[in-house]
Order: sequence, then C-alpha cells, then structure tokens
Amino acid sequence: MQRRMSRGPGRRPGPTETREKILAEARALFAEKGYDGASLRAIARAAGVDPALVHHFFGNKEGVFVEAMRFPADPAVVLPRILGAPRERLGETMVRVFLEIWGDDERRAPLLAMLRSAMTNERAAALLREFVTAALLGRAKEATDAPPLGIQAAVGQMIGIMILRHVVRIEPLASASEDELVELVAPTLQRYLVP
Amino acid sequence: MQRRMSRGPGRRPGPTETREKILAEARALFAEKGYDGASLRAIARAAGVDPALVHHFFGNKEGVFVEAMRFPADPAVVLPRILGAPRERLGETMVRVFLEIWGDDERRAPLLAMLRSAMTNERAAALLREFVTAALLGRAKEATDAPPLGIQAAVGQMIGIMILRHVVRIEPLASASEDELVELVAPTLQRYLVP
Repeated sequence: MQRRMSRGPGRRPGPTETREKILAEARALFAEKGYDGASLRAIARAAGVDPALVHHFFGNKEGVFVEAMRFPADPAVVLPRILGAPRERLGETMVRVFLEIWGDDERRAPLLAMLRSAMTNERAAALLREFVTAALLGRAKEATDAPPLGIQAAVGQMIGIMILRHVVRIEPLASASEDELVELVAPTLQRYLVP
Repeated sequence: MQRRMSRGPGRRPGPTETREKILAEARALFAEKGYDGASLRAIARAAGVDPALVHHFFGNKEGVFVEAMRFPADPAVVLPRILGAPRERLGETMVRVFLEIWGDDERRAPLLAMLRSAMTNERAAALLREFVTAALLGRAKEATDAPPLGIQAAVGQMIGIMILRHVVRIEPLASASEDELVELVAPTLQRYLVP
C-alpha cells in the first residue's frame, strides 16, 4: 500500500514533507468519513507511512485532527487546565480559558471557520459533533462529574457570547473587559458544572 | 424621482407587486447602507412610492426590515411577550420564546442564514448589529431595567445553545425536552435580567 511521495526520481521526502502529507491526507479523510470514521491507521495508509510515525508526530487521532483542522485548542492541553482548577472555581477558570483562546485573532479565525462550515454543510457539522463528543465531552466525563447537559450549556454560553462579542460586535459586550465578563458569566458556568 | 414600475405599457402595479418592490429595494438599501443608514424615506424613494404607503404596509423601518430580511421574530410582537411576564419569570419566559422560535424549521432557517452571513461578511455583521441594537436592545431598555450586558449575555446563552442543539446537534442537548432546557437555563437568564 506504500505510495511514492518523492517529487523527483530518487529523492526521499524529509520529515516536514511527510508531516504535511499526513495532515493533507487526514483532512481529506476527516472530510470524507467524519471523525469517528477516519482511523489513525487509515490516515497512515493514505499517506503511505507506518502508523507508528503518525503516533510519533501527533500522539493520537485527536492530535492529528487538532493539527489538520487547525483546531485552535488542543483538548489534551485545555481540558486539564480547566479540570485541574479547584472545584469552586471551575466556572471562572472555564470563562478565562475561553476568553484567552477567543481573544487571540489567530486562534479565533479557524474556530469561526469551523462553525461557519458547520452552519452550511452537514458533513462539517457531523465532523465537529463527532470530534467534540469524542475528544472533549468523552474526556471531560472521565475527569469530572459535571452533568453532560450542563457542560454543553456552559459551552453554548461561551460560544454565544463570543459570537456577539467578536462577530456581531455588539456593545457593551464587545468592549467589556475580561474581568467584567468573568464576573457576569462565571457564576452561570459554575452552576452548570457543579449543580 | 418617481420610477416606472409597470411591466407592460399602461399597466399599473397591484398592491402585492408594490409591496414586493418595496421589500426588494429595502433589501438592497439595507445591504448597501446598513440598518441605521437606510431611512424609510429613502426606501420609499427607491421603490417610487410615497413614504405613507410604506408606513401603511409595514408600520415602520423595523417592520420593513423584519419582512425584507425574513427576520423570523418581529420585535414588536416578541418583546412585549417577554417583558410582559411577571418579573420573577422573566428568565423562563425568554427561554420559552426562544425555544419556540428556534424550534420551528421555517423560522430557524432565516436566523441561521443571517448569522452565517454575519460570520462571513462585515457588512452583514454591521446590519445585524445595528438592527439588534436599535430594534431589540433600544426597545428593551425603555421597557425594563435589565442591564444591557446582562441582556446580551442572555441572548448569547440562547444563541449558543441553539447552535449546539440545532446545527452541531450534539447529544444530549439536541434531544433534551423544552422543559429540561427551561429548568437548566431559566435561572441563568433570570440572574442576567434581574440581577
């Protein structure tokens, strides 16, 4: 199943080229089969490399997805930050982490792109749904007793505020300071996460 | 400035044609000048009719916008329903009104279309921002002492939940009953609206 990737005769691809090749094939497979349907093994096969190399570069399928889709928040990094907070500050910590990610233009752009695709295209919506379910909620469930519906209401609160703040840019929300937003929203998230 | 609108020589447009003509010119003017920049008078002028006729058909500029953009919730109808609720049930009433509007496929489609445009296009974002500011928040401010930031956090909560429920369709949120959502979210909105 090994495919040739060299550009000229006899030239072997370097690690950067191989990495990019894996990501390109992963993007195509995620788009075609969804998150659940695209296995790490199939991604490796499509890229003509050993699965161990994909592991070596990206850790696991979640890591491949985060890189391939430019998902601006690696669950393996973000979730422990939130879930590691003291129980009585879960809400506040979640607000601060979201504000930090969305406040950064470079990380906000791919998030908006993904939301936009999900709003126009059922395959993209399915991809986002499967990834969020497996990588975010599945993982959160293992690490916390927060009710799934509460977690989703909390995520919904942050998505909605971010759309009004950064896309519609309505005042006074667009100009509110991070501390004002924490004061406003943290008790809501706290109640959802620790009912 | 009167323009001819008849399709054939000597034929005068009927009320339905005139109405459609006004809406088409309104859509063009809103897109070009934004909500604040498009006056009722200018819309009438572009359609070649008397402003009194626009008044007669649509009440005011807000009414023209609601019809022209197929905005699925007329603020003149929706706001009094929410604001007329007993003070201690403001949150619950707002959740129920939003669930009713978003639960209806025909009303959800144009709302999503508008959000989608706002996410891709700065003019569309400005149009939505100006309309929401003038027609929804301006009006709400006259009728309630709810803090503007709280109103926006409440709207954000509902937008985010609706995106996760109806677009991303994540479980268990997608299948939750209206009563479950009211129980989950009403206290949040109540706190935002009556702090």
